[in-house]
Amino acid sequence: MNFCSECGQPVSVEVPAGDNRPRHVCHACETIHYSNPNIIAGCLPVYQEEYILLCKRAIEPRIGYWTLPAGFMENNESVEQAALRETFEEACASVTISKLYTLTSIVHVNQVQMLYLAELTSPEYAASEESLEVELFHINEIPWDQLAFQTIHNALRFYIEDKKNGKFPLHTVLLDTVPGEYIRETHA
Amino acid sequence: MNFCSECGQPVSVEVPAGDNRPRHVCHACETIHYSNPNIIAGCLPVYQEEYILLCKRAIEPRIGYWTLPAGFMENNESVEQAALRETFEEACASVTISKLYTLTSIVHVNQVQMLYLAELTSPEYAASEESLEVELFHINEIPWDQLAFQTIHNALRFYIEDKKNGKFPLHTVLLDTVPGEYIRETHA
Ligand SMILES: [Zn+2]
Ligand SMILES: [Zn+2]
Repeated sequence: MNFCSECGQPVSVEVPAGDNRPRHVCHACETIHYSNPNIIAGCLPVYQEEYILLCKRAIEPRIGYWTLPAGFMENNESVEQAALRETFEEACASVTISKLYTLTSIVHVNQVQMLYLAELTSPEYAASEESLEVELFHINEIPWDQLAFQTIHNALRFYIEDKKNGKFPLHTVLLDTVPGEYIRETHA
Repeated sequence: MNFCSECGQPVSVEVPAGDNRPRHVCHACETIHYSNPNIIAGCLPVYQEEYILLCKRAIEPRIGYWTLPAGFMENNESVEQAALRETFEEACASVTISKLYTLTSIVHVNQVQMLYLAELTSPEYAASEESLEVELFHINEIPWDQLAFQTIHNALRFYIEDKKNGKFPLHTVLLDTVPGEYIRETHA
């Protein structure tokens, strides 16, 4: 941010009175501009318990790699509505949400990703503007070395582990700058 | 938003190519400016199972009304870290998080509130710059008519109901424009 989005004058970076963090401050109109994490909402769509719907990304980043349907939550919708919308937009699939399954704070990019466990009741899906291919993968045939993101890897691994116990608790994860590493904050 | 925060030129509101929602677009530097929901993180601090720590707000909105410690999640922290930080800033209290307890999409203000069930292990707390008073209330003496927000009302009611069953599932709520009303999206 270089200019005030309200009045167009240059902003400076400083700690406002009563605050303890640097913000973008406009002295022309006295607006303080805050920057906060964004929410990524999506689904882990399961078909007949052993098949998972993955999308091959048609857009950067990680074009050509497989992911779960997920994207930025928009204004004027709930987290669940965002997850369902993204699943429809990326996989042309209508799913039924069963529960919030992963909550990942991706600290180094200021994102919070929430993935819902969801059921695909009939095998209807298709590629879209955002996905080159959409495919059901058996849990024994996940393309582990072609996954787009660490969060997707984690979610799939959680599902396969949890399936053995028949319990699917919420997994809270803190992902930091070290690629491939993650800290599980709590066991729910 | 009236001006581009990157280049300072006026922005226009239009649907960008490949998108389906109006955005603030700058034609001078070709930046698309997105606006997305913000996360409010906080705690429901419980002491000896029957006492809840509430804060009397020292700042607008709803100054003088009682609330749970919560506030905007900042960049470079996890949701849990934000909840703990806000509890320390507003109530000078250190708590132990047990689990994510409420997830409320407050659609009309583009906020997602996440409250954690937490334990206050010793009755140490104090007023702060953000709280006029901080007090432990027995669950039979909650000041229901002096609560700051519907989300706080909901969380306290969930706790009191759930305590009877000894189970504290995640409560997912969609709060819309009608004051006092809420839709519980899922029972977990
Ligand atoms: Zn300004
Ligand atoms: Zn611009």
